[in-house]
Amino acid sequence: MLCLKCVTNSEWINSAKKNLTEVIIDHAHCEKKAALTGMNLMNTYPEKTDLGLEMADLVEEEIGHFRSVLKILQRRGETLTRDKGDDYAKELFKQLRKNKPERFLDHLLTAGIIEARSCERLQILAENIEDEELKRFYTTLAKSEAGHYVTFIKIAKEYFDETVVKQRLEELTNFEAELVKNLPNKPSMHG
Amino acid sequence: MLCLKCVTNSEWINSAKKNLTEVIIDHAHCEKKAALTGMNLMNTYPEKTDLGLEMADLVEEEIGHFRSVLKILQRRGETLTRDKGDDYAKELFKQLRKNKPERFLDHLLTAGIIEARSCERLQILAENIEDEELKRFYTTLAKSEAGHYVTFIKIAKEYFDETVVKQRLEELTNFEAELVKNLPNKPSMHG
Repeated sequence: MLCLKCVTNSEWINSAKKNLTEVIIDHAHCEKKAALTGMNLMNTYPEKTDLGLEMADLVEEEIGHFRSVLKILQRRGETLTRDKGDDYAKELFKQLRKNKPERFLDHLLTAGIIEARSCERLQILAENIEDEELKRFYTTLAKSEAGHYVTFIKIAKEYFDETVVKQRLEELTNFEAELVKNLPNKPSMHG
Repeated sequence: MLCLKCVTNSEWINSAKKNLTEVIIDHAHCEKKAALTGMNLMNTYPEKTDLGLEMADLVEEEIGHFRSVLKILQRRGETLTRDKGDDYAKELFKQLRKNKPERFLDHLLTAGIIEARSCERLQILAENIEDEELKRFYTTLAKSEAGHYVTFIKIAKEYFDETVVKQRLEELTNFEAELVKNLPNKPSMHG
């Protein structure tokens, strides 16, 4: 799916179904952190106006998703709890190279890959859980995350040569696939 | 105006008019940081669902303003530059007490006071600059910031006794007034 080199282990959905509230809470935090990634990019590269405008759209959309997840929790009589962190995303962000142009490319591609994986997992949730409201919600969100993946790759190609983008995306998606194969199948979006 | 205990020194608008681009750039950063304040609050108090929902609205609105300011810069042939920081806001946030319930109240009130001061200064800009597009824009935004001030005070009163809110607001606005009297009148939103 999209750029991903491996599919999620079927163990993950079993763990997610058994602890759906935990997954929903973690998902809210993921949406919030996706908005923060957008703000981080607009802050780090202030002179890139087109990037700033794209990231403003992204932040609005992700915060809109955060609000929707919060309302779902509210209807289920639950509240958010403290963010437990996301080891998967942390490992990916560790791959960002230090120097500016390379770092910018890596930042865009890593953000895009995380959107792609989130899209895959939201789709798996949509196909496997029974709650009709959540099924519809996750289907809609999976499409939106796929759109964000496309946006990040498009921006990367605006600032970098297509061959360079493809090559680095290949490297990072290979790394991501190895990472995903070794995940512990915890009940979280990237667990 | 609103809760403020002093008006901005008339020297400030002269400095702002002479360096309008600098003010516009700083304003974009202020909108981005106002969004970050909202995200910070939703992150620090995850269990407060009503707060999270209010902050989601705030973040969307502030990011919408950020986008508008970025488009104004674009039309003027300028780009954002690096954020120079905001000594005024930093000083205010230093006043947050350490323990949780007091800290939460102080966080809300400080965010509200900054919105109130931003509202006053946007109104001053609207009344004193000649560019008709900017005049209209600042008038609209001043109203929005006043609305955010009202929201923060309303939230504070939902979580704390009205007398406690009024007393702490009195203390913080007194501190803010002293701070504003000693500002260097730099060409920035809170300069």
